[in-house]
Amino acid sequence: MSVRVKDYITTEDFTKEELLDILNVSLLIKKNIKAGYPLNVLYHKSLGMIFEQASTRTRVSFETAMTQLGGHAQYLAPGQIQLGKHESMKDTSIVLSRLVDIMMARVQQHNTVVELAKYSTVPVLNGMSDYNHPTQEMGDLITIFEHMPEGKSIEDCKVVFVGDCTQVCASLMMIITKMGGHFVHYGPKDFQLKGKYLEIAEANCKVSGGSYLVTDDPEEALKDADFIYTDVWYGLYESELPKDERMKIFYPKYQVNMDMLSKCAPNVKFMHCLPATRGEEVTDEVMDNPDVSICFDEAENRLTAMRGLLVYFMDKMEETTEICKKNLGE
Amino acid sequence: MSVRVKDYITTEDFTKEELLDILNVSLLIKKNIKAGYPLNVLYHKSLGMIFEQASTRTRVSFETAMTQLGGHAQYLAPGQIQLGKHESMKDTSIVLSRLVDIMMARVQQHNTVVELAKYSTVPVLNGMSDYNHPTQEMGDLITIFEHMPEGKSIEDCKVVFVGDCTQVCASLMMIITKMGGHFVHYGPKDFQLKGKYLEIAEANCKVSGGSYLVTDDPEEALKDADFIYTDVWYGLYESELPKDERMKIFYPKYQVNMDMLSKCAPNVKFMHCLPATRGEEVTDEVMDNPDVSICFDEAENRLTAMRGLLVYFMDKMEETTEICKKNLGE
Amino acid sequence: MSVRVKDYITTEDFTKEELLDILNVSLLIKKNIKAGYPLNVLYHKSLGMIFEQASTRTRVSFETAMTQLGGHAQYLAPGQIQLGKHESMKDTSIVLSRLVDIMMARVQQHNTVVELAKYSTVPVLNGMSDYNHPTQEMGDLITIFEHMPEGKSIEDCKVVFVGDCTQVCASLMMIITKMGGHFVHYGPKDFQLKGKYLEIAEANCKVSGGSYLVTDDPEEALKDADFIYTDVWYGLYESELPKDERMKIFYPKYQVNMDMLSKCAPNVKFMHCLPATRGEEVTDEVMDNPDVSICFDEAENRLTAMRGLLVYFMDKMEETTEICKKNLGE
Repeated sequence: MSVRVKDYITTEDFTKEELLDILNVSLLIKKNIKAGYPLNVLYHKSLGMIFEQASTRTRVSFETAMTQLGGHAQYLAPGQIQLGKHESMKDTSIVLSRLVDIMMARVQQHNTVVELAKYSTVPVLNGMSDYNHPTQEMGDLITIFEHMPEGKSIEDCKVVFVGDCTQVCASLMMIITKMGGHFVHYGPKDFQLKGKYLEIAEANCKVSGGSYLVTDDPEEALKDADFIYTDVWYGLYESELPKDERMKIFYPKYQVNMDMLSKCAPNVKFMHCLPATRGEEVTDEVMDNPDVSICFDEAENRLTAMRGLLVYFMDKMEETTEICKKNLGE
Repeated sequence: MSVRVKDYITTEDFTKEELLDILNVSLLIKKNIKAGYPLNVLYHKSLGMIFEQASTRTRVSFETAMTQLGGHAQYLAPGQIQLGKHESMKDTSIVLSRLVDIMMARVQQHNTVVELAKYSTVPVLNGMSDYNHPTQEMGDLITIFEHMPEGKSIEDCKVVFVGDCTQVCASLMMIITKMGGHFVHYGPKDFQLKGKYLEIAEANCKVSGGSYLVTDDPEEALKDADFIYTDVWYGLYESELPKDERMKIFYPKYQVNMDMLSKCAPNVKFMHCLPATRGEEVTDEVMDNPDVSICFDEAENRLTAMRGLLVYFMDKMEETTEICKKNLGE
Repeated sequence: MSVRVKDYITTEDFTKEELLDILNVSLLIKKNIKAGYPLNVLYHKSLGMIFEQASTRTRVSFETAMTQLGGHAQYLAPGQIQLGKHESMKDTSIVLSRLVDIMMARVQQHNTVVELAKYSTVPVLNGMSDYNHPTQEMGDLITIFEHMPEGKSIEDCKVVFVGDCTQVCASLMMIITKMGGHFVHYGPKDFQLKGKYLEIAEANCKVSGGSYLVTDDPEEALKDADFIYTDVWYGLYESELPKDERMKIFYPKYQVNMDMLSKCAPNVKFMHCLPATRGEEVTDEVMDNPDVSICFDEAENRLTAMRGLLVYFMDKMEETTEICKKNLGE
């Protein structure tokens, strides 16, 4: 097995099988580390982390992941490196490729990470853009696998995103339809997934046998839902909605509360990419309910995913698998 | 031996014996590292460092300490993580607990670090608040032990804090009275320790047999003093005093100079948490005098203390002690 | 062999032989790491990196270098540590010496790094000042050695800096004249090297047998040039030139383009410290020409140089040489 596509810009560049390989190695590394066995498969390697926007979860996850794999992550904070400002993106990309072993970038505009990857000679991982959030996708997929309803497989699952069509909503659609699951975006008409995103959903389902639906009808959306996922309502980047405006659009219909969950499958689980605005898109009652809420497991699985992704893109799958299995006596 | 209290918020949560255990392991690790033996008791572990305010000494000490113990410290600079702003403190605390192994926080308001610790499932160390500075306390105690007047023990020492009742003053009081030593705050009436701090002093002395005194009488304060400790006069946080105002209050009576030291015990030592404003609270003559000034040893012992605290709260006391003793042939 | 001068403030403090020793160990470590052998000669050591100004290349190079040598680099960003502001430079320098094993500083004024080194008890490396850029010098020298024209040695090389007399220009002069090569600054009269810099060139050439020339005559400057080196035209620090003004001064005469290169030696190579302003001091045609442009190798050799410098100033030359040679079977 070797890396087919150099960069992790979108899960659309990968087959279902490749993504499941990353998921499997992620779970294996998690088991290995929880069992107390250190790993050094990225010994003395350096990850350059470029952030055009602040991020706690993504940054901390990557930094811990590199430490746990024997390497080191360099945090290039917003403003410390200005992609395409003082020097051409091409030059920055070529130079950084000479100085670090792998890069990740959280960017404002998707094209920035695409350009970075184009000129880079080392792997580039997309740490979120205005278009998608593929490291979140892998963490979410892992979380869904860990909380799979009894007797079901991913192909039988109904996963519903409630609320605004953020890039996290789009990313959830991509990974669920890629896997052959059943994806629903339940949101108000003007804030629904559309255009190119629906084309991706369509194409994915054709290959995978999954389905997708975009609707503002609660019954259709929620019936038999295995996972309810939401995100903040305030939008991101330049076009943030003021609180009263967003409440008018989404509240109370799209708030995830115990009443909404009662319309789903009996063992429905609640997911959120976090940070959450408690009292807006989700109630305390849901978020703090240990029978329902898996959003903190999901947060931890950002780290689980990062380790698997780093190992995959640094072409260390076989070595890592072998070491972990040996450690765990498997 | 196992950790009784999860977090290091205040030394008041610990017994004299527990604090001396931390001191002893700190000194043992220092000896081990000075002798050139590497340690890996926190191998691949991650410390999350949250700073609401800039700090050189605390940050660099923790970062070096983690490196020397085989782990890694992540620097979350002021503004990079906003506790209790975009998401509830509870959520931030739970999420970070999933991503790092231990946290430290330098906060503006003491309650912030208390809340962080309350929801965190990993240990939280207080890297200074407006109330106290317990990592400084441990470094100071180590420094006092290393420079103990001949034939004396901590219970015989007179330790005098001169000047403004900063959180460093309060912290010095806590650790000295906890240990059974004799603590004096020598400062102007309106800038003396009071209220809850005096209750702590009172309670500590009752248990430890130590004493405390708050006074503006120089003779009573300085007579037989073994250690003279001071801090800047400009206050901290929102209520910084302008230079002319603070000089009017503290100068020249509370400036530590050779004349003041001549009124103390013959081998009196000078301490300062640093940074110092030379020419205000202390003269060059004192600070640069190698017979008197131990403030740079004290600065180094921030690092000494950090290592001991990290080992204690990560529950690695026995392992560390065993390894160091074996290395040193003890 | 042991370290003669504690700090790397300027290459003028070192003999040609000492600088060649650093170059050689740098090349040896590069070979060792490219061959996949990890090094731990700075195991658990901490480098404190002080930046008064932002820098990608210098920071990333040092941080990767420390990781590859088994240690860790702490990034103290502009504003995080204020040299000579809140506390005296002396105190900062003494304290940091107690907390880290080695320091580097990128400073606005050269005297700052001189003062830092004066009081520090650990080695201090100059990561660029308004006066010079000695880590760049070492990286450049390595690059020149790697691309030496066939049959030539450094003493036969003609190295021409084109454009504004930046500190990179000055530094190139220092290292080339120190080595006994032939240095030319080809620039407009008001932007030529002068004063103390020419005294250094003069003194170096007297010892080394090299030569130097400052001129605005293109024929004299470019004839038989083996290396053409340039830097941005906009100046640095407080006195940045507006674009139209700098174009009026330097364009088109001092732009490095294929026409200029045709007047040099047949196998002339193009160097640039980067970042470049493409279309001003250099054309795309030159910069992207793999037969001519070695500026990205040069960027990588910042890292090559950092490793050698760290090993030299941490007094690990013999140990490192031995390990690398053993690894490589030499």
